[in-house]
Amino acid sequence: MNLSMVTDLYELSMANGYQQTIPDEEGIFDIFYRRVPDNGSFVVTAGLAQAIDAVADFHFEKTDLAYLDSLHLFTEKFLLFLKDFHFSGEMTAVPEGTPIFPREPILTVRGPLIQVQLFETLLLSIINHESLIATKARRITYAAQGRPIMEFGARRAQGPMSATFGARAAIIGGCASTSNLLTAKLFDVPSAGTMAHSWIEAFPSELAAFEKWAELYPDNCALLVDTYDVINSGVPNAIKVFGDLVKQGHQPIGIRIDSGDIAHLAKIARQQLDAAGFEKAKITASNALDETTIQSLLLNEKAPIDNFGIGEKLITSASDPVLSGVYKLVAVVHDGHLVPKIKISDSREKVTLPGLKKVYRLYNKQTHEAFADVITLADEEISANSQISVRSADPLDTRQHSFLRDFDFKALQTTIFDQGKPVYTSPTVKEIQAACRSALKELPEESKRLSNPNKYPVYISEELAQLQDQLIGVD
Amino acid sequence: MNLSMVTDLYELSMANGYQQTIPDEEGIFDIFYRRVPDNGSFVVTAGLAQAIDAVADFHFEKTDLAYLDSLHLFTEKFLLFLKDFHFSGEMTAVPEGTPIFPREPILTVRGPLIQVQLFETLLLSIINHESLIATKARRITYAAQGRPIMEFGARRAQGPMSATFGARAAIIGGCASTSNLLTAKLFDVPSAGTMAHSWIEAFPSELAAFEKWAELYPDNCALLVDTYDVINSGVPNAIKVFGDLVKQGHQPIGIRIDSGDIAHLAKIARQQLDAAGFEKAKITASNALDETTIQSLLLNEKAPIDNFGIGEKLITSASDPVLSGVYKLVAVVHDGHLVPKIKISDSREKVTLPGLKKVYRLYNKQTHEAFADVITLADEEISANSQISVRSADPLDTRQHSFLRDFDFKALQTTIFDQGKPVYTSPTVKEIQAACRSALKELPEESKRLSNPNKYPVYISEELAQLQDQLIGVD
Repeated sequence: MNLSMVTDLYELSMANGYQQTIPDEEGIFDIFYRRVPDNGSFVVTAGLAQAIDAVADFHFEKTDLAYLDSLHLFTEKFLLFLKDFHFSGEMTAVPEGTPIFPREPILTVRGPLIQVQLFETLLLSIINHESLIATKARRITYAAQGRPIMEFGARRAQGPMSATFGARAAIIGGCASTSNLLTAKLFDVPSAGTMAHSWIEAFPSELAAFEKWAELYPDNCALLVDTYDVINSGVPNAIKVFGDLVKQGHQPIGIRIDSGDIAHLAKIARQQLDAAGFEKAKITASNALDETTIQSLLLNEKAPIDNFGIGEKLITSASDPVLSGVYKLVAVVHDGHLVPKIKISDSREKVTLPGLKKVYRLYNKQTHEAFADVITLADEEISANSQISVRSADPLDTRQHSFLRDFDFKALQTTIFDQGKPVYTSPTVKEIQAACRSALKELPEESKRLSNPNKYPVYISEELAQLQDQLIGVD
Repeated sequence: MNLSMVTDLYELSMANGYQQTIPDEEGIFDIFYRRVPDNGSFVVTAGLAQAIDAVADFHFEKTDLAYLDSLHLFTEKFLLFLKDFHFSGEMTAVPEGTPIFPREPILTVRGPLIQVQLFETLLLSIINHESLIATKARRITYAAQGRPIMEFGARRAQGPMSATFGARAAIIGGCASTSNLLTAKLFDVPSAGTMAHSWIEAFPSELAAFEKWAELYPDNCALLVDTYDVINSGVPNAIKVFGDLVKQGHQPIGIRIDSGDIAHLAKIARQQLDAAGFEKAKITASNALDETTIQSLLLNEKAPIDNFGIGEKLITSASDPVLSGVYKLVAVVHDGHLVPKIKISDSREKVTLPGLKKVYRLYNKQTHEAFADVITLADEEISANSQISVRSADPLDTRQHSFLRDFDFKALQTTIFDQGKPVYTSPTVKEIQAACRSALKELPEESKRLSNPNKYPVYISEELAQLQDQLIGVD
């Protein structure tokens, strides 16, 4: 399975065409998105490590070339170019785990058009997918208010690899652990799990099944209590087994409830456990939960749940399963001169931001809270002591001029490839998770709300705004 | 990337436990689902070929075993068992491309519990994913009423592998082609594609970009006409280029519209093309379409569209992105005796069908139309000359007894593994697509409707019904 072949046919048709018409032209492409899933205010980026691997390893094997040749669309010269493909350009990107707002470039690639055109499909499929799941995980962990979230959606993911990289993204977005062993192994993150109903059913009785489990895993004893009847059978049997465990000097972990009215069952189970002296035994809830149900369980119904196991609604971002990131040409380099490009559209909202750009996050000097982002042209310099003249980045806003002054700032982009060489070392997934948590802390609370979040201000510099106007033909 | 590690931790914890408690117990698991995505009446199954590979290749590598050992959960004996893992059991399944109804077993695995418990996560993630996308593709091709559908969602798929196997499933469900070169190469299916907006923008003018394309691909000339203005620029420029092509003896393919009001633009473009003598030039529409929009475009708005390119809404089944297939223990084999098992639930709907079973599709002898399915115990025989006593398979129905007689019938399951050996040769994807088309033709029209389809009758044999009642404790 050569990932480089996960490329739309037309990327190759275009590259083959560029080779015959404008072989020396360079292109600059931005990846960005316009709409945040679930009407949130930002996306948590993820997938950069896989994107780097995809570009560094981009190649075509003998059988790929034979297949492409069989299409009778490509010149021999082009197939030779594919055979010896190696990226010779530049890439910048925001680190994984960064909260990023609509229209801000997440990743920018510069290089010969004939090369960088080929990356579109693969880069988007990686970045769109992982950022989608990291964003959903952020929402779910936000709703859980610090309670640990176990990701266990592999069986309902869109295939095993989607499960694996989705679980990676879920950890970046804030999940505590995953049930997926491949993810846990590859990315050195905690694995977690208890037992399935089949364990209970494989034994003559629920009690016998629990007893065996306690014997096997005395220090990892979390029991699934809803196979037959949570209140009348599951919890009483768990309590018996926990009693024996304590006598043997072990601390039981707790119980998991996977069906029925979770809030109601958790409340009674809590009383039963407490009455038996197991105040420290945790209650884990699972059963098709997402951020909306979790918020309701905790805030409205005051369900005494300590941990959540989240499956299909996280691993597919079921309520909004697509992040519509795009890969748009923002400039060509013609005889050494950078010529900004724009995609005009009937819909003002879809008009792109031209040119090579940078994104800055601005912080209040006193509170250290982020209060706005500014997108500038790459050759503009900003400094903490001068003011910046800006307009709103959202073309649907009135776009009056404003001035920003007296701030601290941070450039969000980092260099990833330099002259075709990868120059960036990805942090570990645990480090990315921690960086994400810090970056989220810096954002205003009201931008993190799950429904109707306040719109965080994203500006473009006056210089960029004027370039855009000029290319659209606005006076 | 060892796919076998795409397994939930608890599967291994349970298997490790089985080895120490009931090592010789055999288990039988069914994969089935309860709810059809998008409120359809059936699912088109897909993914069996990948499921077979996953089981045949199930293994643990040195680094996997080292990782598992580091969890301090498993005995040395169990790790040795994993090291030498090979499946020794049986598998039956319905062939890919079969329309299948709720509660009918799609795939059944029988073997030592310690083995078959391990397949749950991986098999479900494969079968759930591909069946989901095949089902969505069936809906979309149904809406398109014979017009070819090109799958081109890779960039919005949930990762590159989801794109690749999703595109395979899309072809099974009826799509004509895919833009994904890996899918086209691996599964020998048609690849398709035109050009992106970046091609147009890379040239000084739209006309110049079109002219170059026509020169490069005179026999594959489909032009994207919405970069600047479909009616005033795109189509007129395409017509100029088509004129030149015809003079050179080539037949232009047509145009693609990817934004704006598709119905309105297609109508005017059609008039423009016809007036210029290009009645045979096709119009392809793309822009975030799904079965609902396609039906509206064709039936209500009478848009003159010849082909559709479908992206994110197909490759993620965006309107309903999860097929909730489950893997449930239906029997254990204890000292050589098959003991049927049932999962009881508070919700009557979730109670499983116990025992080893078969599914038959029954046909009207005159019309050859399928009129019902019957699920029986595996050792029951049915014949065309006797009658069958049945009840509804849906526990929410009144479940009165009925008798079925005078029918032709077909058993849907096939043997896939026999004593651990794969004995089934998967058809090609094109053959599966054709088989799916035939199987769909046999179903009643009213079960194929996109909204509020008629419920196709699925029965269980009286013997199976009585076994279920007995295990639930119903008199």
